[in-house]
Amino acid sequence: MQFQNWGEDPFIEFLAKEFQYKKGLFGIGDDCAVLPANWLVTTDALVEGVHFLKDQIPPQDLGYKTVAVNVSDIAAMGGMPKYGFLSIALPKNTESSWAKLLIEGIKEACGKWDIQLLGGDTVGSKRDIFLNMTLIGSAEQVKYRTGAKEGDIICVSGYLGDSGGGLKALQEEVKADQLIRRHFRPEPSIEHGNQLASCADVHAMMDISDGLDCDLRRLLKASHKGAMIDIDKIPISSELSQICKEKGWDPLQFALTGGEDYCLLFTVAKEGLKMLPFFPIGYITKEGLTYQKKGKAISINYSNYSHFV
Amino acid sequence: MQFQNWGEDPFIEFLAKEFQYKKGLFGIGDDCAVLPANWLVTTDALVEGVHFLKDQIPPQDLGYKTVAVNVSDIAAMGGMPKYGFLSIALPKNTESSWAKLLIEGIKEACGKWDIQLLGGDTVGSKRDIFLNMTLIGSAEQVKYRTGAKEGDIICVSGYLGDSGGGLKALQEEVKADQLIRRHFRPEPSIEHGNQLASCADVHAMMDISDGLDCDLRRLLKASHKGAMIDIDKIPISSELSQICKEKGWDPLQFALTGGEDYCLLFTVAKEGLKMLPFFPIGYITKEGLTYQKKGKAISINYSNYSHFV
Repeated sequence: MQFQNWGEDPFIEFLAKEFQYKKGLFGIGDDCAVLPANWLVTTDALVEGVHFLKDQIPPQDLGYKTVAVNVSDIAAMGGMPKYGFLSIALPKNTESSWAKLLIEGIKEACGKWDIQLLGGDTVGSKRDIFLNMTLIGSAEQVKYRTGAKEGDIICVSGYLGDSGGGLKALQEEVKADQLIRRHFRPEPSIEHGNQLASCADVHAMMDISDGLDCDLRRLLKASHKGAMIDIDKIPISSELSQICKEKGWDPLQFALTGGEDYCLLFTVAKEGLKMLPFFPIGYITKEGLTYQKKGKAISINYSNYSHFV
Repeated sequence: MQFQNWGEDPFIEFLAKEFQYKKGLFGIGDDCAVLPANWLVTTDALVEGVHFLKDQIPPQDLGYKTVAVNVSDIAAMGGMPKYGFLSIALPKNTESSWAKLLIEGIKEACGKWDIQLLGGDTVGSKRDIFLNMTLIGSAEQVKYRTGAKEGDIICVSGYLGDSGGGLKALQEEVKADQLIRRHFRPEPSIEHGNQLASCADVHAMMDISDGLDCDLRRLLKASHKGAMIDIDKIPISSELSQICKEKGWDPLQFALTGGEDYCLLFTVAKEGLKMLPFFPIGYITKEGLTYQKKGKAISINYSNYSHFV
């Protein structure tokens, strides 16, 4: 069997089974690992030809994004980012001016979120660029994806699908600056994550990196619950709506499977909802995942996000 | 200018200058970063075609080595490894049986050094395999590479050049099982590192990953000192001596520039030396690096280790 047929989630499950760990630690299967004293650790890799095309993304944006996707994982546990470690593998013919702009973007993002870059590894690569960031943060209160309760309202913290729409616009060479910017420079929800982590009524939280459909299924699996989602309530930006109307694209496909939104997905008891300025999109049920439109269950048949490979 | 002409050390210096950080933290430029409360963090990347050839190294050994090279960095600061984070980028046609053997080797190494693997990232890769491990450890006392004092004795904790000799044997298809094993399964010096860290007379310490010549120059630069090395005192194993005699290879070249020895390089006050069962190879001077043979300075003209690229 080849890796492509094994799939990422089964591979992660295999890893989680192989590497069982001591009580009091929380590791594989959430946005971050949680170490003693609520230290959070997350790591994300960006691979040329899979997560980005070198000719397409400006190097500053690539650097910014390398940091931002990790910050989003810290945000999703309710923490603040602190220390970064960066591995960079570059082919030997990479222009050093390109590398300097990459570092400029990393530096900009580290400055923005007050991250101290404390180490890493710089190595050669035969053909493709690999970037890997490990980010350490800390949290006063940690929210996991395991705590959803039946009857909880399911919310997202921002518009969905902009990044996926931006990628589509890039691929089809359509002008859509704002969406493309959302794709290149995601804005992780650190403040929202902290606010939600301090709210006892919020029972489960994670970030949306692989699309609402995929990530919601992960949250439901981790919490052993189901969900009903009202697709009319899924927040779509006016920019995405408009370009989809013009081009005949389906905004719902981007919102559900586009990925790289990097906003938060969380579940909250009804009582807690009123204080929170977020988008309720459905509620937690006993089992299964159902989408409905105007009160009627509908079936959704989008294939999940698979980047460029 | 291309990355190959910029060079790794100037790139690291550029990074260190770009990312200056708050006092009380210690980051870029040593084997590990040191966080508050003596948490140590290190990260190392292994790239297919640069650090290993897939057809050459058994996947279990590759997994083992991925962990071991990071453990060596923790050892070099005097710490104990604790928590691991692993990013794996695999081309989609990678056999899952190969991936399982890779994980088996990682698991074996994590078990050996009591490391809890708590997270990571599993992604696709277009063409080459990319492995990145971040390892967190802790130390009671931390040794840096900055503390060498004039007059210190320079020591190494084990034989040098075996790994480089093993790589050469692989490339030339010469039978040399023990050297090849040293190349595939390096043995980091955790116990030695701990012993040396607790010894006040030890002033500077690091591991030898890129060859004695390259790494000693780094230690000297960090400590603003020089060194005199007696090349007759550089410890060479009988296996390496023998194969070099048979094949007409130069053992000193492997010892100085072969790299991947993963033993410790440290400097110690004369008074401290007698308790330590290690190999003294020279002493710290005010500046410059001189090699001598039978009391006469000699010049060494090996090019440094550059893996496969």
